[in-house]
Amino acid sequence: MTKYVYSFTEGNKDMKDLLGGKGANLAEMTNLGLPVPPGFTITTDACRSYLNLGATPESLDVEVTAQLRAVEQQMGKTLGAAEDPLLVSVRSGAKFSMPGMMETVLNIGLNDESVEGLAAKSGNDRFAWDSYRRLIQMFGKTVLDIDGEHFSKPIEELQHTKGYAGDLDMTTEDLKELVAQFKDVVLRDTGKPFPQDPREQMDLAIEAVFRSWNTDRAAIYRRRERIPNDIGTAVNICTMVFGNMGDKSGTGVCFTRDPSTGHSGVYGDYLVNAQGEDVVAGIRNTLSLADLEKLDKKCYDELVGIMHKLETHYRDLCDIEFTIEEGKLWMLQTRVGKRTAGAAFRVAAQLVDERLITQDEAVTRVTGDQLTALLFPQFDKDADKTIISRGMAASPGAAVGEIVLNNEQAIERTNAGASVVLVRRETNPDDLAGMVAATGVLTARGGKTSHAAVVARGMGRCCVVGAEDLVVDEAAGTVDVKSTGKQFKRGDIIAIDGTTGEIFEGNVPVVDSPVMTYISHGLEAGLAASPDDATKELVEAVDRILTRADSKRHLLVRANADNPEDARRAREFGAQGIGLCRTEHMFLGDRRQLIENVILADTEDERQEAFDALTPLQKGDFEGIFEAMDGRPVTVRLIDPPLHEFLPDLTEMSIKLALKTERGEEITAHEKKVMAAVRANHEQNPMLGLRGVRLGLKIPGLFSLQIRAIAEAYVACKQKGLDPQPEIMVPLIGSVRELQIVRDEATEIFKEVSEASGVEVDLPVGNMIELPRAAMTAEDIAKESDFFSFGTNDLTQTTWGFSRDDVEASFFNEYFDAGVFGISPFETIDIHGVGALVKEGVARGRSAKPELHCGVCGEHGGDPTSIHFFDSVGLDYVSCSPFRVPIARLEAGRAAISNDVA
Amino acid sequence: MTKYVYSFTEGNKDMKDLLGGKGANLAEMTNLGLPVPPGFTITTDACRSYLNLGATPESLDVEVTAQLRAVEQQMGKTLGAAEDPLLVSVRSGAKFSMPGMMETVLNIGLNDESVEGLAAKSGNDRFAWDSYRRLIQMFGKTVLDIDGEHFSKPIEELQHTKGYAGDLDMTTEDLKELVAQFKDVVLRDTGKPFPQDPREQMDLAIEAVFRSWNTDRAAIYRRRERIPNDIGTAVNICTMVFGNMGDKSGTGVCFTRDPSTGHSGVYGDYLVNAQGEDVVAGIRNTLSLADLEKLDKKCYDELVGIMHKLETHYRDLCDIEFTIEEGKLWMLQTRVGKRTAGAAFRVAAQLVDERLITQDEAVTRVTGDQLTALLFPQFDKDADKTIISRGMAASPGAAVGEIVLNNEQAIERTNAGASVVLVRRETNPDDLAGMVAATGVLTARGGKTSHAAVVARGMGRCCVVGAEDLVVDEAAGTVDVKSTGKQFKRGDIIAIDGTTGEIFEGNVPVVDSPVMTYISHGLEAGLAASPDDATKELVEAVDRILTRADSKRHLLVRANADNPEDARRAREFGAQGIGLCRTEHMFLGDRRQLIENVILADTEDERQEAFDALTPLQKGDFEGIFEAMDGRPVTVRLIDPPLHEFLPDLTEMSIKLALKTERGEEITAHEKKVMAAVRANHEQNPMLGLRGVRLGLKIPGLFSLQIRAIAEAYVACKQKGLDPQPEIMVPLIGSVRELQIVRDEATEIFKEVSEASGVEVDLPVGNMIELPRAAMTAEDIAKESDFFSFGTNDLTQTTWGFSRDDVEASFFNEYFDAGVFGISPFETIDIHGVGALVKEGVARGRSAKPELHCGVCGEHGGDPTSIHFFDSVGLDYVSCSPFRVPIARLEAGRAAISNDVA
Repeated sequence: MTKYVYSFTEGNKDMKDLLGGKGANLAEMTNLGLPVPPGFTITTDACRSYLNLGATPESLDVEVTAQLRAVEQQMGKTLGAAEDPLLVSVRSGAKFSMPGMMETVLNIGLNDESVEGLAAKSGNDRFAWDSYRRLIQMFGKTVLDIDGEHFSKPIEELQHTKGYAGDLDMTTEDLKELVAQFKDVVLRDTGKPFPQDPREQMDLAIEAVFRSWNTDRAAIYRRRERIPNDIGTAVNICTMVFGNMGDKSGTGVCFTRDPSTGHSGVYGDYLVNAQGEDVVAGIRNTLSLADLEKLDKKCYDELVGIMHKLETHYRDLCDIEFTIEEGKLWMLQTRVGKRTAGAAFRVAAQLVDERLITQDEAVTRVTGDQLTALLFPQFDKDADKTIISRGMAASPGAAVGEIVLNNEQAIERTNAGASVVLVRRETNPDDLAGMVAATGVLTARGGKTSHAAVVARGMGRCCVVGAEDLVVDEAAGTVDVKSTGKQFKRGDIIAIDGTTGEIFEGNVPVVDSPVMTYISHGLEAGLAASPDDATKELVEAVDRILTRADSKRHLLVRANADNPEDARRAREFGAQGIGLCRTEHMFLGDRRQLIENVILADTEDERQEAFDALTPLQKGDFEGIFEAMDGRPVTVRLIDPPLHEFLPDLTEMSIKLALKTERGEEITAHEKKVMAAVRANHEQNPMLGLRGVRLGLKIPGLFSLQIRAIAEAYVACKQKGLDPQPEIMVPLIGSVRELQIVRDEATEIFKEVSEASGVEVDLPVGNMIELPRAAMTAEDIAKESDFFSFGTNDLTQTTWGFSRDDVEASFFNEYFDAGVFGISPFETIDIHGVGALVKEGVARGRSAKPELHCGVCGEHGGDPTSIHFFDSVGLDYVSCSPFRVPIARLEAGRAAISNDVA
Repeated sequence: MTKYVYSFTEGNKDMKDLLGGKGANLAEMTNLGLPVPPGFTITTDACRSYLNLGATPESLDVEVTAQLRAVEQQMGKTLGAAEDPLLVSVRSGAKFSMPGMMETVLNIGLNDESVEGLAAKSGNDRFAWDSYRRLIQMFGKTVLDIDGEHFSKPIEELQHTKGYAGDLDMTTEDLKELVAQFKDVVLRDTGKPFPQDPREQMDLAIEAVFRSWNTDRAAIYRRRERIPNDIGTAVNICTMVFGNMGDKSGTGVCFTRDPSTGHSGVYGDYLVNAQGEDVVAGIRNTLSLADLEKLDKKCYDELVGIMHKLETHYRDLCDIEFTIEEGKLWMLQTRVGKRTAGAAFRVAAQLVDERLITQDEAVTRVTGDQLTALLFPQFDKDADKTIISRGMAASPGAAVGEIVLNNEQAIERTNAGASVVLVRRETNPDDLAGMVAATGVLTARGGKTSHAAVVARGMGRCCVVGAEDLVVDEAAGTVDVKSTGKQFKRGDIIAIDGTTGEIFEGNVPVVDSPVMTYISHGLEAGLAASPDDATKELVEAVDRILTRADSKRHLLVRANADNPEDARRAREFGAQGIGLCRTEHMFLGDRRQLIENVILADTEDERQEAFDALTPLQKGDFEGIFEAMDGRPVTVRLIDPPLHEFLPDLTEMSIKLALKTERGEEITAHEKKVMAAVRANHEQNPMLGLRGVRLGLKIPGLFSLQIRAIAEAYVACKQKGLDPQPEIMVPLIGSVRELQIVRDEATEIFKEVSEASGVEVDLPVGNMIELPRAAMTAEDIAKESDFFSFGTNDLTQTTWGFSRDDVEASFFNEYFDAGVFGISPFETIDIHGVGALVKEGVARGRSAKPELHCGVCGEHGGDPTSIHFFDSVGLDYVSCSPFRVPIARLEAGRAAISNDVA
């Protein structure tokens, strides 16, 4: 039979899955011999069972009874007894901290009789009745689902009538009166009296905690924090101790070292005659821990001893909650302390210096997300800010500028020297020029993987998306805020925070990132850019940890870059090559006409003419990139998207021509030709249509043009004395035969270019693995391939059978709510499904060619969780957008260290 | 080292992969002690190596020398020697017969000297010089690629000048003159003299045979016959024997029993003083074998003895080629004889009667394709027919009727009692009514898996597609034939043959199929419908074999059917249930408005109203189907297609409204609403969008409506005393969680319906496996699922990443040409890729639930090759269109018998 309840003496800190974070750490402290009030934890298993069945498991009751009796025996008290009653708290505690998201009920065990017993024992009538009042109020709200106003209103009325300033003015008689009123509220609202049976109170509270797992706010929080939806919460039942019993009592919070610098010392706050809630509420000024030394030397010394013990034990900065009840110290909670991104690096470096942790451990103590936060400029924390609205943080950074609403405005104002924020309902590829010109991008629609978000992250451009409170009217040149009615106009200054999603009015001062200077230009430059010693310490900490990560990681880190500028930047950030150089972007702008000529060509000759015009341009593109990445591999992907992307939209074009006809206007021959091409190239499902290698087989000469341009650019670089290392990558391979055909074509061209130039050309030819079939037949494909690059975006689309363009907007929210996934599989790789195919592809590929080089390109290449997975399946490299390169370096190091241990 | 050459004494009939069919059988006959002219076979390995490397493998030369010397020793002659030369033939011979597709060169070894030696030895100058003339002509054309006209012209001129009637009039001197001229042609055309070295002749001929594998006509033939592109051909080098040495010589073809009835006896043709080519060319009337008995009793007796020996050995009807050279019998070829569909069944049954083969073997001797050919009405073979044009045979049968060009015409004329053929450029779902009304469907566009083809096959409607020579003008009511300029009008009678793809003018008499009568109504009815004893024998043979197949097969055969009529028909054909009952068709027609109401609903109430209107209609649908399939399972698939399929097309609607605006006409509120819905539901890639289970999660109530209708129909049938066996199938599952949610919904509804009716309702709930993710996580999904049904159409789309709607038209032809696949993966399952996922899905599913029932629904369920695969991976059933049920039964039996042996 499953064991559903663990005494604090039975668990330990590694049992977070089962006991939650709070329960596991309470058990750990208990077993360290620290003064923890006796209690026990109900497991997450019990919660999951409750959530599935709608009722608590049968054996739970019995186990709770046994554990409760043990606590009663240890305390020499009985739960809710008329004399000297045992009182307990019932608190949630999931594996991951979800502060304020779930329920807590204190003072369980009080009833009409035991309240007198508590008064007698404590010698404090008011304390006992206030505790009872609080119990009914908290229980009513959280367990019985009664509107909180039914309790807060009577208190307000009473204080108003009597002219009280606050809660503390209320007398014992007042509180007795409130208890009577609250019991009425419960009876009226639920049809049943407030339960007097202490065990019934406890059981109902336990169920309420279980239920609170599934409240909307908890679900939304989990989605935001990427906490799985199905793990459930544990419930901790703990003997009540009271910091509010008088001046010899109190409660506090402390850290085992300075939480922002990591320097050792004793940090914390203490509040006399108060409960934990009061510290958080900040109703009185707190004292420092040093003051506690003066008030209660014995407790202070004991606490400092415990702090050292905990830090040595956890080997990390801990935060601690404690209570002193009439001169007796109690430990209520501890955990590895949360910290800011900067503190994380400094604490880790400090702990290494103190020989508390190893350098490898230091790498695992920080995260890519923390490093990201340090790389971008931020708004000055001390500046005055007026928030307008809020969207989703899509690409970090801080941007301030004039509102512009389209490309033209963006470019015009930027050319005039202005800084601009591009504000649009949503973006599409046509908005690229505006996004490039702007310092920040703000959209009213779309999620974290919308076009705006993905492109902005790729460019390292600050971006906030899905600010649904905004109405963007491009024609009118206005941005309205629905909730407030405020209106902003083109040219007004706004500021957006890509790390928080906040949108501010007017100019907000921005602070540059010295960590970014370090990343781009090295340690000396980073130190020189640091305004103070604390920042210098930070830059040094980042350097130490990142250098260590680089030395440990198995995964090479490459970048996705399509032009020399991006390539140079990627290199600065430490990219060891380009893992994905898309070639379709090179056909946009002025060259769109040339590719249109390819599509519209009536004869082979016309088409060849169009190819011939494109070849030198492509050669130039590649030369620039190879030069910027000299000495490192550049993986060039042959053209991938469907041709219709280079043509007008079917519906728009159809309407245009229908209206021309209606008006009796002549439709030109060119328009007719374009319309015919649009129709011929229209596809029901372009994602599943004529694209990738299929284009190469369908349009003879198209791939040749590109391969020739690559080969000639290689030769040109060689002749300049450079060391170009291009690799040719064929997209959308489903069958080895497709690759064979392109490889034969390439071999032919290499030979021709070799002979013409006298420079030997024999470049690697590999392929994307982005179709399930490619993964499942990788042992065949490997025979013709020099390398695999997993295209996990497309692989996710085909493995799940949904298209990113469509489904994120249409039903992903329902899917998050239903718990189908906790995070979009486009953001973090779906390890169980898509990951299984990646694993399969690597294993099958290497079964045929053990030395096969395997990497991944696309969004997942820069995602921490995904990087850990890619390390675990033995990929050779990840490729991500240039701005994610430092993050990928760090995470690859972390992955190597933890996967090596495992 | 790979062995590339096998003497006829080294091979056997089971080595067809390596030696080709001809080579394997020559070896078999040699080892049986039959008089085969000595020779050897070069393997398909050598051919593949040549095709890959562009040159013969090095060791081939050496092996050929050794084998040639052995033949020379045995014959006591030397290849091309001046005196009594050894001559050889060089013939292609692939694993699968490809008549006339590849090259043959006879008389290798003749040159200016050996021709004299042959003349001397044979005492026949003319024969020797004619042989030399033929060698140069054949060698020039096939080995040296010289235009055949350069040889045929001089012959014509000579015969014209001399006033000859034909070849036989040419004298020795004429032939010598021609030889001289031909040698000039070779020198002029190739710059080199005709090779005099006999070994060089042979080596060049071998290479020419290798090369001929890749000619266009061979590639096209292979594609049509589904012969893999990469297996290559073997080459047989065989000592020449001559049937044209005079009256004691001759050549013939014979069968070991009557090839159309299977009755034993001696059947064949013989031609005196002739070579094999002459029999085929039919230049003179042949004699029967009986005549040979009179001409040459010794050879006749020997031949009959060999025929019996071969039949006993091969245990099947064999066809044989032989030559008699001056009274000596030589066996040149044998193989298991090709036969018509009817003959295949009759021969198999006959062989069982003669105890030559077992009943199981009889089942493996016939194919589903042969059974198909017997099921459909056919045009009277003896009738006069005028062919108009030709398309692809898409759905078998013979249809005669008036040309109609759209639904209205089809229905109007059918109602008036006419028989009609629906002729369209291509069809789409809107043409369904017309297709139902018509006896046949003809389209100018589309392939074997186009809409017209798939739907027609599903209905068992005769259909020809892709008749690209036709121009269909619906508005003008005409069908023009491009190549001939002929025009047909609406109302003109045409006839189409769905088995051959032919299109005829006017009325062609049609003959009904008694085998079909047998299948639908049993043996007695089939015999009664047979016009003669031969047909009765056929019907009996089909019955015996199909009964045996049924008794042996592991796979159950179900049908895809959406209405009671189809269900009844499927049952007649032997369906053991319905494996796929689509529900979306039930929302078309009159009910389209109701589903539009669901989509356009502004409030929950409005939507519920629309659901409430649909529920009783759906209940009625299901009741009818459960009744028709009483006592057998009916798998109902919940609604699958994207909602926009129930709305107008985006482009059409946009144009309509743009024109209204242009004309100043008012756009109605309803139009605005519909337009908004069309826009909201428009997807870039609907195949990857909001469909299947996603609809169920996105639109609360939609699945409930259907589940409730199924449960209520179940109850209604139960209350009528029937035995309904519905199973609920959830489409497009990618994650177990999706299924869990629908299952919970269903459980709730079952409970409600049970309580309301007093009839216990607890129906199986299972799911489609049609996404790679479902296959890769099947062990999880199985935990919530009562059965899996593999949707291999969709699985093919996602595994390969192409959409059937788009790619078949756009690039499948290039893919066939390039050898990426030999047959569309939508026609026969791609065993290597998609099949691997099916295997994975079954294995993973059963690892969690060993008793899990697994089947397949969709086109592949009725495809012979696919059925064999499904049997091999242990599926429990296949489901196919009703008309494919008998074929599936037979093929499932064949699969079981052959997979059990393997």
